Amino acid sequence: MEEVWDLCREDLQRVEEQIHSDLKSNLSLISIMGSHLINSGGKRFRPLLMILTSRLAGYTGKSHTELASVIELIHAATLFHDDVIDEASTRRGNKTARMLWGNQASILVGDYLYAKAQCTIVSFHNHDLNETITEATRKMAKGELAQLAFNGDLSITEEDYLEIIGNKTASLMAATCRIGAILGECSSEQRTEFESFGWSIGMAFQLADDTLDYIANKAKLGKSVGKDLEEGKVTLPLLALLKRCSQADAEKIERVISLSEFTEENLKYILNLMKEYGVIEYSLDMARSFVEKAKKSLPLFEDTIPLQALLTVADYVVDREL
Amino acid sequence: MEEVWDLCREDLQRVEEQIHSDLKSNLSLISIMGSHLINSGGKRFRPLLMILTSRLAGYTGKSHTELASVIELIHAATLFHDDVIDEASTRRGNKTARMLWGNQASILVGDYLYAKAQCTIVSFHNHDLNETITEATRKMAKGELAQLAFNGDLSITEEDYLEIIGNKTASLMAATCRIGAILGECSSEQRTEFESFGWSIGMAFQLADDTLDYIANKAKLGKSVGKDLEEGKVTLPLLALLKRCSQADAEKIERVISLSEFTEENLKYILNLMKEYGVIEYSLDMARSFVEKAKKSLPLFEDTIPLQALLTVADYVVDREL
Repeated sequence: MEEVWDLCREDLQRVEEQIHSDLKSNLSLISIMGSHLINSGGKRFRPLLMILTSRLAGYTGKSHTELASVIELIHAATLFHDDVIDEASTRRGNKTARMLWGNQASILVGDYLYAKAQCTIVSFHNHDLNETITEATRKMAKGELAQLAFNGDLSITEEDYLEIIGNKTASLMAATCRIGAILGECSSEQRTEFESFGWSIGMAFQLADDTLDYIANKAKLGKSVGKDLEEGKVTLPLLALLKRCSQADAEKIERVISLSEFTEENLKYILNLMKEYGVIEYSLDMARSFVEKAKKSLPLFEDTIPLQALLTVADYVVDREL
Repeated sequence: MEEVWDLCREDLQRVEEQIHSDLKSNLSLISIMGSHLINSGGKRFRPLLMILTSRLAGYTGKSHTELASVIELIHAATLFHDDVIDEASTRRGNKTARMLWGNQASILVGDYLYAKAQCTIVSFHNHDLNETITEATRKMAKGELAQLAFNGDLSITEEDYLEIIGNKTASLMAATCRIGAILGECSSEQRTEFESFGWSIGMAFQLADDTLDYIANKAKLGKSVGKDLEEGKVTLPLLALLKRCSQADAEKIERVISLSEFTEENLKYILNLMKEYGVIEYSLDMARSFVEKAKKSLPLFEDTIPLQALLTVADYVVDREL
């Protein structure tokens, strides 16, 4: 994977410059808060996807830099709002913007970045581009809302869960990869194939994330184990556990959640059950099946370097933190 | 003005149906919260502007219904976020969505409505339309942010204040009127004229609103006097007062605001000063000067009925609640 990052180093540097130029504003809240979030250690995974897909599609121009910045601004906008909604105090080990500048400014800077991104997109005068991004952002908001509506609800089905992560996470990665194909002026079929690749990558990404939440090394990720559980987010490992465990265990888990009894003892109890019933492996297997699906989605092009890189990226999505 | 509303009754009814169809969703939070806000007594002033401007521009199609709904959705999205930011408990005498469904849902439904509106806009495949709306929403977010940045800051200048209300309020009305001209396939010059009309109307609208905050009849508007003052929003009447009154009075006002001493006695004291220094009239005069500017912006067309109606609307903007 290091080689893949190296392959895109120059383009990624240009994306970085573009993001900082896009965040410039005579309103200091925009530039300061925007930079705080953008510099808080995100990997620029979506820009990487756009660089590689546009290369695979044969694109040799420079617009992918501007569009990759747009995708990062949209992603940043959702993080500003997510942190307010989750009442998060830290992100990647740093204080969240809401802790430093308040919820009000976080909501409004999110709104601003989102609007600013839309301004850049429509300036390209490309209808497919417009529709790809606006539909992705609609799905993202819908996914976040559905996640909120199902908060703490243990009756959520695997199907509901997959729909939520598809909307909230996979849709933006699908759009990112489709944009690569749009830039390369690919056929309609190929655009759909690129989009499917991004969608599956996104599904695998979120499934891995949700599973890692129950196994992550605290020091390594700056996250505590079971954060989703505490926030009432019912993700695949918990869902799968509730389906498999005894009724007595299920009732105990329900009690822990409904009474917010997230003691170390209770968390250990749930983590042990997860091991016992193999739900971590089950969730990772599902993530890996999306990786396989992604790998089969890509159309064949002559240049095999970006293709090989994208296949490497696909594997990395699940194995990045294991 | 009643005649103007009557003139547009049928079109407004169609807009109403369109809004309700746009709010339909398999996620009940969207339809229920959306309907709650939309049905809370807004006058559909922006749809009225779009209907009349598109008629004046000679448009005879039906797209203005869909686009007027889009404008209302964007307006609703900002109200959802505004109410969270202002910690508002009521809007037009009804409980706000955040009091009924919480801040989290209010933020996300706002995000969703905004994204949904963008999806509809780009489906028209009209670049001017796309750029008009995205630029307006960018300005709106910027205006709200600047308002927040200046919260409680008595050093704000009249120029800063006018820029804020231009961005947060006038930009959407300007866009609404420009869309009327776009639908009528007007020339570039005429589009700018329609836009200027909407901008001036929006400036007059917000100036009147901000002035009414210090004189409104509580029972009539379901609002209390001096709400902006309590929220730290420094608007023209207060600004103008601080510029005119004695240093001792200015210091007392500053103390009231910095210590949040909004007693009835202090409010009366400030209101009396406002009368004494004629700042209510000063603010209303400025509002009326924007009305006059608006009236002079409109290009001449053969059909004088929508033109007369728009001139009536312009006067109504300032005199609606006096």
